[in-house]
Amino acid sequence: MAVYTEVSDEDLEAFAAAYDFGEIISCKGIAEGVENSNYMLQTASGPFILTLYERRVNPKELPFFLGLMEHLARSGVQCPVPLKGRDGEALRTLCGRPAAIISFLSGMWPRRITAEHCAELGKALAGLHRAGMAYNMTRENSLSVAGWRDLYNRTGAAAENIEKGLSTLIGSELDALAKNWPSPNTLPSGVIHADLFPDNVFFLDGKCSGLIDFYFACNDFLAYDIVICLNAWCFEPDGAFNITKAHRLFSAYEAVRPLTPAEKAALPILARGGAMRFLLTRLYDWVNTPPGAMVKPKNPREYLQKLNFHRSVTDLSAYGLN
Amino acid sequence: MAVYTEVSDEDLEAFAAAYDFGEIISCKGIAEGVENSNYMLQTASGPFILTLYERRVNPKELPFFLGLMEHLARSGVQCPVPLKGRDGEALRTLCGRPAAIISFLSGMWPRRITAEHCAELGKALAGLHRAGMAYNMTRENSLSVAGWRDLYNRTGAAAENIEKGLSTLIGSELDALAKNWPSPNTLPSGVIHADLFPDNVFFLDGKCSGLIDFYFACNDFLAYDIVICLNAWCFEPDGAFNITKAHRLFSAYEAVRPLTPAEKAALPILARGGAMRFLLTRLYDWVNTPPGAMVKPKNPREYLQKLNFHRSVTDLSAYGLN
Repeated sequence: MAVYTEVSDEDLEAFAAAYDFGEIISCKGIAEGVENSNYMLQTASGPFILTLYERRVNPKELPFFLGLMEHLARSGVQCPVPLKGRDGEALRTLCGRPAAIISFLSGMWPRRITAEHCAELGKALAGLHRAGMAYNMTRENSLSVAGWRDLYNRTGAAAENIEKGLSTLIGSELDALAKNWPSPNTLPSGVIHADLFPDNVFFLDGKCSGLIDFYFACNDFLAYDIVICLNAWCFEPDGAFNITKAHRLFSAYEAVRPLTPAEKAALPILARGGAMRFLLTRLYDWVNTPPGAMVKPKNPREYLQKLNFHRSVTDLSAYGLN
Repeated sequence: MAVYTEVSDEDLEAFAAAYDFGEIISCKGIAEGVENSNYMLQTASGPFILTLYERRVNPKELPFFLGLMEHLARSGVQCPVPLKGRDGEALRTLCGRPAAIISFLSGMWPRRITAEHCAELGKALAGLHRAGMAYNMTRENSLSVAGWRDLYNRTGAAAENIEKGLSTLIGSELDALAKNWPSPNTLPSGVIHADLFPDNVFFLDGKCSGLIDFYFACNDFLAYDIVICLNAWCFEPDGAFNITKAHRLFSAYEAVRPLTPAEKAALPILARGGAMRFLLTRLYDWVNTPPGAMVKPKNPREYLQKLNFHRSVTDLSAYGLN
C-alpha cells in the first residue's frame, strides 16, 4: 500500500480547474498500488482515480501508457481511460510529478482465485492482445531476457542470503534462458500487459469487469504474457501448480486467439523466463527496500518455486494442454 | 496511512448482504487513519465508508461511539452516521473484527490552515458541544490527568533520548498539572471529540462540511476540547503561535457558547494538559512502534514546544482573548 505524495486541497483545486467534472467533493489516498500514488476522487460527475507517477515510471513513457489505455478502451477492452482536460491534454503536473485523472473502473480483484476466474482472465487477456495489435506506439520490454543478467548483478548477495546455492542456480538458468529464448519474429508478438496479477484484474458477479495498471505494458511475445498469468494465477498458496486453473486459462484464451505450435512449444522456456523476471525484481526489492518503507518487499522464494516447477516440465500436458 | 486487515471480496459480499444499499461495485482501502482500517465502498446507492476496528479501540466502547455519531447527526451536527442493516444493527463482525459501514461525508481536510478555517472549526466545535449535552451515554477520558503518570511510566527512556533533561521537565510538569487541574464540576463538561486535528475536519468551498473520527470521544471539560484544537490548529509549522487563528477560533466558538470566567481562567493549565497528552502518546508511540510499521510515529518534540509555550502564558491576551 502506498501514497507517496500528499496532495493538498489547494493543489488539487488548481489541478482540477482544467477539467469539466464539476466540484471535487472528496479525495482520499488509496492503499493500493506499489509504483504510484493513487487517490479516489469523488466529483459532481461521479468517481475518478487520480494518479501521481512516482519513481519507477519514466515520464517519457507515459504517453505510451496513457495512449494504450485509450486505444484499448476504444477497441472494446474494459480498462480505465485517461480523462482529457479542456485543453485536450490528459497528462499534466501536480505536486511536481506527472499526473493524470483516469476513469473509475467498477469491480474488485479476487483474493481467492478459482478456475472460473482463470477462464475469465484468459478471455480478457486474449482480447487485450487482439486489441493491442493495432496500437501504433511501441515500448521495449526492459525486463526481459536481455536485461536479466544486469538486473541480477544489481541484487548483490541477496540470492545467497535467501538460499545457499541460489546464485549458482540463477547463473546457469540465465545462461539457459539466453540460449533457448525464442528469436524475435518466431512467435506472435504485440502489446503485452506484463504484470497481470490478480490485483490488476477486476471482477463483478464472477465476471471480469476490467483490467488496470498498464504501467509495465510493452511489446513482446504474446505468449510471454500468458505465462506471467500462469505463474500469478495457477499456483496455490502452498506452491502447488493447479492444472485445472491452467487448463481453463489456456482454453479461454485459445477460444479467442489459438496458440501457434511454435508458441505452445515455447511455453516452458517462456514460463521459466516469466518466473525469473519476478524472482529477480523481488530479489532486487528484497535488498533495496529500506526497513521502514511503506511497501513491504515480497518474498522471492515464491518465484524460485515456480521457476523450479517449470524446469521440471517435460510435456505440455503438465500445463493442461493437449 | 494504514489498512491493517485485508478484506476479501467474498467476506465483503457476505457482510454486505445484511444491508440494503444494493450491489457493491468497488472497495478500496483508504490510506488515512491510524487506529482502524478504512475502505471506500462504491455501491449502487453511492459511496460509503467501511471501518474495521483494530487494536486500540475497545469493542465494548463501540456502542458509545456509534451511538454518539447517530445522536450528533440527529441533532444537526454534520458527521458520518452508522448505517443499520435490515436487522437494525450497525455493528457486526468482518474478518474477525468489529466492523461498521458509515455514511460518506463530503469534503477534504485542509493541509494549509488559515484563520478562516479556525473560525469554521470554532463554530463546529461549539455546535458539537451543545449537541452532545443531550447524549445519554458516557465514557471516561482515559487519556486525561489521572492517566498521564502511568502513561509516562510506560514511555521508558524515550524522553531522555529525545532531549536531555526532558524526563525531569515532564515529571515536574505532571506534578503541576495534577495540583492545578480544575476539579470536576468547576467547569462546564460534556461530550468532547478529544482528537479534532485538521485531518478530522472536512471543508468544502472554505466552509466546514463535517467532523469525523469520534473514536477518542469521551466526557470531560468542554474547554479541554478547545485547547486540543488550539494546539492542533493555531501553531505554525515553524512552532510559532498564531494569535490571529486563536482569536478567530475562540470568537467563533463563543458566538455559539460563551466561555465562563472559570473556563477562561483555566485555559493555560488546560492547554498545558492538552499538550502533555499528545506529548506522552507520541513519546509512547515513538518507542513502541516497530521500524517496519505501516504508520510512522510523529515526532514528540512538536508538543514539547507547545507545552513550553503554554507554560510561558501569564495573561489570556496571549491567546487573543480580551
